[in-house]
Amino acid sequence: MDTKRPLILVVNDDGVTAPGIRTLIRLMKTLGEVVVVAPDSPQSGKGHAITLDSMLQAERVYIDEGEQVEYACSGTPVDCVKLALNKLVPRKPDLCVSGINHGSNASINVLYSGTMAAALEGAIEGIPSIGFSLLDYAQDADFSQCEDYVLKIAEQVLANPIPKGTCLNVNIPKVKKDAIKGIRVCRQAHGNWNEEFDERINPLGKTYYWLTGNYVNNDPKTDTDIWALDNNYISVVPVMFDLTSHDTIQELKSLNHG
Amino acid sequence: MDTKRPLILVVNDDGVTAPGIRTLIRLMKTLGEVVVVAPDSPQSGKGHAITLDSMLQAERVYIDEGEQVEYACSGTPVDCVKLALNKLVPRKPDLCVSGINHGSNASINVLYSGTMAAALEGAIEGIPSIGFSLLDYAQDADFSQCEDYVLKIAEQVLANPIPKGTCLNVNIPKVKKDAIKGIRVCRQAHGNWNEEFDERINPLGKTYYWLTGNYVNNDPKTDTDIWALDNNYISVVPVMFDLTSHDTIQELKSLNHG
Repeated sequence: MDTKRPLILVVNDDGVTAPGIRTLIRLMKTLGEVVVVAPDSPQSGKGHAITLDSMLQAERVYIDEGEQVEYACSGTPVDCVKLALNKLVPRKPDLCVSGINHGSNASINVLYSGTMAAALEGAIEGIPSIGFSLLDYAQDADFSQCEDYVLKIAEQVLANPIPKGTCLNVNIPKVKKDAIKGIRVCRQAHGNWNEEFDERINPLGKTYYWLTGNYVNNDPKTDTDIWALDNNYISVVPVMFDLTSHDTIQELKSLNHG
Repeated sequence: MDTKRPLILVVNDDGVTAPGIRTLIRLMKTLGEVVVVAPDSPQSGKGHAITLDSMLQAERVYIDEGEQVEYACSGTPVDCVKLALNKLVPRKPDLCVSGINHGSNASINVLYSGTMAAALEGAIEGIPSIGFSLLDYAQDADFSQCEDYVLKIAEQVLANPIPKGTCLNVNIPKVKKDAIKGIRVCRQAHGNWNEEFDERINPLGKTYYWLTGNYVNNDPKTDTDIWALDNNYISVVPVMFDLTSHDTIQELKSLNHG
């Protein structure tokens, strides 16, 4: 194997057999040497969760043909990245890609997303990292329409490192390739989920709930990821792991004491 | 019950019976009407995880005497906040407090923390929110030394709302009350975890791992939470849920296309 080829770590949150990651693996193999460490079961909505109260396992799996080395891991997406970097990759990866997620990670979804948490974990470890998501939750979503764009963005990041302390949150509209108008670097739209818990009674008479809801966009401006996606652009948001609201430190100085 | 008293939602990630939340509940009862919705089992390290693939339950529990209304919830800390706000509180809370966590949530720990994710979820819903953590992982940690400070900060936030889009990440050094030098509003220190997976072989001959590691601080400056805590100050970091790295959007414009 040519060790001059970039090493690419591929992760996701939908699980190692999901069509989205199978597409991403196939694309990344054209750019470099690929190691896959992905959850052995769906881990959507797991955010930046890590496994502290249980052990982790990682099993070699052979799903598609090729030289890629693949592991199914019992943990969360962030566990996958941590275990990969510490135990499973032959050297520090040149790129970490997460996805392609089945469903949007735009706006506030970035916080709940296992896909984006994995990318952020790569960035914390100093690896250029990208999370890709297609706005289609279906298991049989059509990833073929966005392949050229995914490749193009990954190539650009390999050639020009992302600013330190950030990773990219790439979301792709659910339209045919010809309808994609291009790529927009933008910011996370302000929005939230309007939860509507579905309340039911179990056979023993006890109440239980299913979490459901609708995303509500509170941000009419045109420089957001939601605007870009609504207008058939691919959105690219630089996401950072310093959560400090630097602008408000001054405002809060009255809390200082001693 | 006097409906003029502020309504305070209390959550945590260590579980509803943890000494840290029992202390916080007792303190908040002196400030207002208290509703507790906390996990029925430990949920440390769960980050911003939500439960999508299972149902949720919330059971009334009666642990300490008093007028507070308490629920033990089967979900994550963020589930607790969502369920509380949508199904369990009598009106929109005036304050959401999370903790007191057994262990630090300073620096990069904010990302992995269920305590801080719950506070952030409160902020997303427009509620002034604070996460409190004591730098002592022990189950029998001594929370009595920090009670005055926790009360003082909560009172100040009730009197002067936190800037929109943020919550407070309050960490408290593990020292006697007299040794606490005061309160510092500061920023999240740059640091990361140096993982050291503990590799073992199970009785069937298969490898498994336990996640362990040490926090490494890469930030020598004196305006950080780690510096404050190392110098016996309580650290207060305003934390935001807009993860956009606004400063780097311009740098990434070469990715724009179409």
